[in-house]
Amino acid sequence: MATALIEDEERLSETFAALASATRRRILARLATGAATVNELAEPFDMTLPAISKHIKVLETAGLITRGRRAQYRPCALDAAPLREIASWAEQYRPVWESRFDQLDDYLAQLQNPERKSP
Amino acid sequence: MATALIEDEERLSETFAALASATRRRILARLATGAATVNELAEPFDMTLPAISKHIKVLETAGLITRGRRAQYRPCALDAAPLREIASWAEQYRPVWESRFDQLDDYLAQLQNPERKSP
Repeated sequence: MATALIEDEERLSETFAALASATRRRILARLATGAATVNELAEPFDMTLPAISKHIKVLETAGLITRGRRAQYRPCALDAAPLREIASWAEQYRPVWESRFDQLDDYLAQLQNPERKSP
Repeated sequence: MATALIEDEERLSETFAALASATRRRILARLATGAATVNELAEPFDMTLPAISKHIKVLETAGLITRGRRAQYRPCALDAAPLREIASWAEQYRPVWESRFDQLDDYLAQLQNPERKSP
């Protein structure tokens, strides 16, 4: 059980690390529109093919990309399951950011109507 | 405008990088229950104070932690705004993971009732 938790934590860290690159996020955005080969993915970037392949490898290791089996092309496809985990991890903090914005709302209301004091 | 976009992308990368550590995520979870000093934050960890301070610095640079001004203690507080950005970034992909699970549902339904072919 404790091991499973540590593995979950490690997987989450790996996903976050994979997403800490604008290039890798753009690759995922492209793949959200459909599968693509490495050459197709490289096209919009001013980057060498080995550099793109390295980014793809990071995404693949993090489970964000799956590769097809067709020997020559091995198209890449998006696996959004880790993104779902990221979303629900961040959503845990919704009460915090909502209370933060509630306080901001109170403050702005008070600026517009100084007679009404917030509690 | 393009510069603003690049800055947004860089901030997002910085947030993701800051979250790519189980220790840093545990620090945020602790701060979600209220502000704390560095000593209080260090308590549950088997880590030196300088090591914890380094993690706090990373979170502070990423805008996830704000520090108080009281000279001696400078308590840390959570700023959940970047987590809100992470959540809405990941939520963009909801249609992808939902269609994925829809397909899985179809597949499981077909396994249980092989007569009914999925379209």
